[in-house]
Amino acid sequence: MHLELLTIGTELLLGFTVDTNSAELGRALAAAGIQVVRRTSVGDDPASIRSGVTEALRRSGSVICTGGLGPTADDVTKKVVADLFRMPLEFHDSLWQGLVERFARFGRAPAEKNRSQAEVPRGATVLPNRWGTAPGLWLEGEPGLAILLPGVPSEMRGLLHHEVLPRLAGRADGAVIRSRSVRTTGVPESTLAERVAGIEEILAPLSVAYLPGTVGVDLRLTAWNLAPDEADARLAAGIREITSRAAEWIYGEGDVDLAEVVLELARQRGWKVATAESCTGGGVGARLTDIPGSSDVFLGGVIAYDNTVKEALLDVPHDLLTQHGAVSEPVAAAMVRGVTRRLGAQAGIAVTGVAGPGGGTAEKPVGLVYIAVAAGDSVSVFRSVFAGDRGEIRSRAAQGALNRLRLEMLKADRAT
Amino acid sequence: MHLELLTIGTELLLGFTVDTNSAELGRALAAAGIQVVRRTSVGDDPASIRSGVTEALRRSGSVICTGGLGPTADDVTKKVVADLFRMPLEFHDSLWQGLVERFARFGRAPAEKNRSQAEVPRGATVLPNRWGTAPGLWLEGEPGLAILLPGVPSEMRGLLHHEVLPRLAGRADGAVIRSRSVRTTGVPESTLAERVAGIEEILAPLSVAYLPGTVGVDLRLTAWNLAPDEADARLAAGIREITSRAAEWIYGEGDVDLAEVVLELARQRGWKVATAESCTGGGVGARLTDIPGSSDVFLGGVIAYDNTVKEALLDVPHDLLTQHGAVSEPVAAAMVRGVTRRLGAQAGIAVTGVAGPGGGTAEKPVGLVYIAVAAGDSVSVFRSVFAGDRGEIRSRAAQGALNRLRLEMLKADRAT
Repeated sequence: MHLELLTIGTELLLGFTVDTNSAELGRALAAAGIQVVRRTSVGDDPASIRSGVTEALRRSGSVICTGGLGPTADDVTKKVVADLFRMPLEFHDSLWQGLVERFARFGRAPAEKNRSQAEVPRGATVLPNRWGTAPGLWLEGEPGLAILLPGVPSEMRGLLHHEVLPRLAGRADGAVIRSRSVRTTGVPESTLAERVAGIEEILAPLSVAYLPGTVGVDLRLTAWNLAPDEADARLAAGIREITSRAAEWIYGEGDVDLAEVVLELARQRGWKVATAESCTGGGVGARLTDIPGSSDVFLGGVIAYDNTVKEALLDVPHDLLTQHGAVSEPVAAAMVRGVTRRLGAQAGIAVTGVAGPGGGTAEKPVGLVYIAVAAGDSVSVFRSVFAGDRGEIRSRAAQGALNRLRLEMLKADRAT
Repeated sequence: MHLELLTIGTELLLGFTVDTNSAELGRALAAAGIQVVRRTSVGDDPASIRSGVTEALRRSGSVICTGGLGPTADDVTKKVVADLFRMPLEFHDSLWQGLVERFARFGRAPAEKNRSQAEVPRGATVLPNRWGTAPGLWLEGEPGLAILLPGVPSEMRGLLHHEVLPRLAGRADGAVIRSRSVRTTGVPESTLAERVAGIEEILAPLSVAYLPGTVGVDLRLTAWNLAPDEADARLAAGIREITSRAAEWIYGEGDVDLAEVVLELARQRGWKVATAESCTGGGVGARLTDIPGSSDVFLGGVIAYDNTVKEALLDVPHDLLTQHGAVSEPVAAAMVRGVTRRLGAQAGIAVTGVAGPGGGTAEKPVGLVYIAVAAGDSVSVFRSVFAGDRGEIRSRAAQGALNRLRLEMLKADRAT
């Protein structure tokens, strides 16, 4: 099955919003064996939406539209598409009651403007939106199939997975497009590529893609239009091959977050984790607590941005700070010792560095970061110089710190 | 002047690559007074590229294409477009020498397949690429204007600013497209829309867009195709009008981050800021320290995820925790008092809540968050129920906490 995507919003054309919905839809549909053959973005004006939908349906028969379902004057998608399908809008009292209840849960009442969100083209299927106020709509008729979803990414995602994909599944032809990927960190793309050189030929017909990001490189294998069993078998063999070559840099598969891996390793050991952060300012803690269920392993930590906090809450000796400076190996070590002792943790991370853009010197340049890791009885300190702007340096420092703790926990196993 | 964008690449349709080129092109062109009226993405196959270019030129007369100019088999853009413009490809020896020299700088020689990158459609203008190996191309003829750029973002950007925009500038008619926006938080889109209802008519010909995000709604005004002076004057008047209606929810303009506003308010007062976080787990600290120069105001904080940390580092009384639970008004107040006292801060934020997905009860549902704020001598606690998944609840709690501190600092002014 083929379809097109039409993302609607003048902001997309102006470039103020990056179109992440298209990417997310593309991935999810491909995984379900449905090929996106074209995607288009148009502004919020009725004529552009109308021509965008008309052309997509004429070319491909099916279109998923996102955006323009909100309660304000520039939200015109529903009206335009209903008109194209000759389905007059009808007010649904049950939808309105749902809206009233939703607002009531947050102690509010819907505005008069929200009434338009309870209107449904006659004959269309309502896709209930538990994540927001605008329901999705499924219109099928002489022009083809049009699926209307809200533009808010979390609402689009909820409707896609709970309402759209299950309905589309029956229309795919049995062949699938499937991907599996491994996640690496702490290794440059070119070094990784040298290590797995020649793998494209060995793994064909799978395709191999390098996906470099700020905090690591993912390696993705894709099976195109194969029977599900063959796709799965080839992907499994491909993952084994890559893992055998690059295991030291691989921390997981698919979407797994490094923080999740770290928490699980600590959990297996019955260890508690604590953090002491200077230049990352809470970013390592935020990474760990992003993971549901982190509270059984992560105790907490200290954001020791100012040196007085390093002394007061982490017991870093004043002399150490004046002698070596806050960004130094001994201070990093003292920070991680302080936080694990104060909080009673067996595993700890401390980060101190120069995130920039100011504050760099010849001796301690922007990007210099000391990461100290406690794992059981051992404390190790690592010196890195991370590239990038302030945000990238902080992200890389947080990722590097998590990865060091992962490796030290694995090493502690081998030592015992 | 109107034009369309065509981004070329199967990875874009599969969603493995997010189309940041389109957003960047949209912003840069709009700033130069050139309106992007549609953007399309197609796969790497010649038929799709051909129909994409043909349709764009028929609709709008001009198109900028990115991608498909590399040396490999799936790079077919140049050939397809040259064919469409009836401009046969010719090998340019000077381009080839440039390639040879470029490779030599990295100690290599170009491969045979790089020769295709030295081919130019007869009559096209070569746009020299100092950032990579594929030159840009400018084709003008009976079908219209087609500008071909590489898909690598840094190369696209270099060519756009150094070669494309200067050439297009002469074609814009002096009119510009300019935007200004205000940022709001703590108010639902529909309530904001009611408050500023009718503003579209008053501010016409400016357009008004509501941009709801996870942590707030931006209101953007855009002047389309006006003389620069008129655009600026109308935008300034529009911002004044919106501010006069919705000041209480507006924390800034443009790209400003709420954390920046909070730091600046504290700085003006000579105050230091400290944080005590449970459910946000470091996220408030990370927001504040994302801002360059935050170290003169932000001292640090405590991530008190586990209750033992609330007692040990924030002096929250054990009885308070057992009696009211960690997610409660008195515990939030005790947390902010503890952290400001321990760190010697005049301003403080404490956050404790149920981020989910587990841990909710009828009395304390997922999304319930207490935010305590210290501003000078006063401590205030606010109860909120945030919607969304774990990540959204945490983001909204961090944003809400920063906003409460902002408002309390402003209130402290009025009280004195």
